[in-house]
Amino acid sequence: MDQLCIVTTGGTIDKIYFDDKSDYQIGEPQIGSILRELGVAFQFNVIPILRKDSLHISAEDRELIRATIAAQPARHVLVTHGTDTMVETANVLSSLHDKTIVLTGALSPARFRGSDAEFNVGCAVGAVQALPPGVYIAMNGRIWDPTKVRKNVAANRFEPVG
Amino acid sequence: MDQLCIVTTGGTIDKIYFDDKSDYQIGEPQIGSILRELGVAFQFNVIPILRKDSLHISAEDRELIRATIAAQPARHVLVTHGTDTMVETANVLSSLHDKTIVLTGALSPARFRGSDAEFNVGCAVGAVQALPPGVYIAMNGRIWDPTKVRKNVAANRFEPVG
Amino acid sequence: MDQLCIVTTGGTIDKIYFDDKSDYQIGEPQIGSILRELGVAFQFNVIPILRKDSLHISAEDRELIRATIAAQPARHVLVTHGTDTMVETANVLSSLHDKTIVLTGALSPARFRGSDAEFNVGCAVGAVQALPPGVYIAMNGRIWDPTKVRKNVAANRFEPVG
Amino acid sequence: MDQLCIVTTGGTIDKIYFDDKSDYQIGEPQIGSILRELGVAFQFNVIPILRKDSLHISAEDRELIRATIAAQPARHVLVTHGTDTMVETANVLSSLHDKTIVLTGALSPARFRGSDAEFNVGCAVGAVQALPPGVYIAMNGRIWDPTKVRKNVAANRFEPVG
Repeated sequence: MDQLCIVTTGGTIDKIYFDDKSDYQIGEPQIGSILRELGVAFQFNVIPILRKDSLHISAEDRELIRATIAAQPARHVLVTHGTDTMVETANVLSSLHDKTIVLTGALSPARFRGSDAEFNVGCAVGAVQALPPGVYIAMNGRIWDPTKVRKNVAANRFEPVG
Repeated sequence: MDQLCIVTTGGTIDKIYFDDKSDYQIGEPQIGSILRELGVAFQFNVIPILRKDSLHISAEDRELIRATIAAQPARHVLVTHGTDTMVETANVLSSLHDKTIVLTGALSPARFRGSDAEFNVGCAVGAVQALPPGVYIAMNGRIWDPTKVRKNVAANRFEPVG
Repeated sequence: MDQLCIVTTGGTIDKIYFDDKSDYQIGEPQIGSILRELGVAFQFNVIPILRKDSLHISAEDRELIRATIAAQPARHVLVTHGTDTMVETANVLSSLHDKTIVLTGALSPARFRGSDAEFNVGCAVGAVQALPPGVYIAMNGRIWDPTKVRKNVAANRFEPVG
Repeated sequence: MDQLCIVTTGGTIDKIYFDDKSDYQIGEPQIGSILRELGVAFQFNVIPILRKDSLHISAEDRELIRATIAAQPARHVLVTHGTDTMVETANVLSSLHDKTIVLTGALSPARFRGSDAEFNVGCAVGAVQALPPGVYIAMNGRIWDPTKVRKNVAANRFEPVG
């Protein structure tokens, strides 16, 4: 892996809490500082194109994500994304070839104790450099084919389809 | 990945601190509770065969690790190991075929804030299900060929050989 | 201090995050498990009477808090409470005599990394056993007279009045 | 409390871990950064006079601590100290009058998840502004008279004498 291109779109992984509003908001992308503090032995660049809850990501947004990735020379791409529509975005990205693209995110904000964010980013980083070109989802410790996974919203986890 | 077999041998990842001894000791393996708390969507079993600082792992210990893994039906194996001699153990395991084996560990104990343990375990989990049979090391966010990596002890990180 | 009576009313300190609702909610009181895990050398009991954001605490709620504390034999009382109306509740409690009552809470949920919850609970525990009977607020590292403090909502901190 | 003077001497609270030495060492004092990150509403200054495991604090060291505190104009003093000989140092400081001095520390390094450091510092901060002049120890959630407490090394906690 010469260089990892990271595209961030928002989602729970980047949520922060403001007491005066008694509400969450999506803050700065966390993945860059996570990787820097861990001292990873590869080069990466971060492209923060959206900062949205994935329920609000539109068809135009997905086209923007697709076009942005298409425009990058990197062959290894990691996308952080909200979990509710991660599968839909993965399916849009499947028209891209010659790149290994892994989407990940978190079920609990990275700033929470016990968050799955660091582990999920680890899974995605491990998978992106090992997999052949294609689009994959790294959640709940599994590397999923986007056409064979869904988020079980009630159970708050990803599971096989059918 | 039908089932992940996890073999634990000790190392910094499992170190705990005892104030009355003013020293660190290697405690219970952390990886099982890490994976359970994160709610991973795969089956795994943990075989805790050693609890040693890797500077104290002998040739006999490495043979024990090799024989234990050889005796398991699992095709996907994750080994947690101290970092100082992780490469040596990986090289001994290279005589095993038909299994994908990933060794990982941590430069900072899992119980420390900011530890690399969860991220490294994530990398190893992501890689083990994506890679062909062989032996690999997952440290510092990279999946390494054990014959082409070394630990830089002074800098406390893994780096390419030569 | 023979026994510490802890009354919990909700507030940010107990907030949890549900991804499927994309919102924060007030969960189980955290203070009991915090004190148990820290291994404190005093006896305490927890009375969880409310689970509300303090903006929703009514005059009837405050009277309930007051009556509950009045009914306890304990002379040392710690109240966890949302920060927005902590001062109002403290002023209602000032009609109680012969008890040392300290209100505290958190500006960031206890489950967040970097939360002020443990520190604030520490301040309250340290103060409640040192102070004469009366009602006090422990926030931002200060022990405040409730008639001389207010929450600066925009700055998200407590500050002196006037 | 106009200004809090903080004197640091080392101890477990400031221990850090170096993998290449497989050993702990006492690092920079943690208390200043803890208080700054928490956004406390009082002024403080930190005097880092020693960086020792408290088993290695000598009679000369204790005299240095005493003389340093005596030379400060502050009436409220917080001392961070290793737990093994915290009581001995407290007894030496009892010759100082007109100051409220609280000693605290931690049974687990501040950098550990679940450390008692923030809670203990909170207890000390809450107590130092509430107590009359004298010397006190804040550990395990209790404010102790140094002549009536000891560390139970085997149980790793402070308990009443006799």
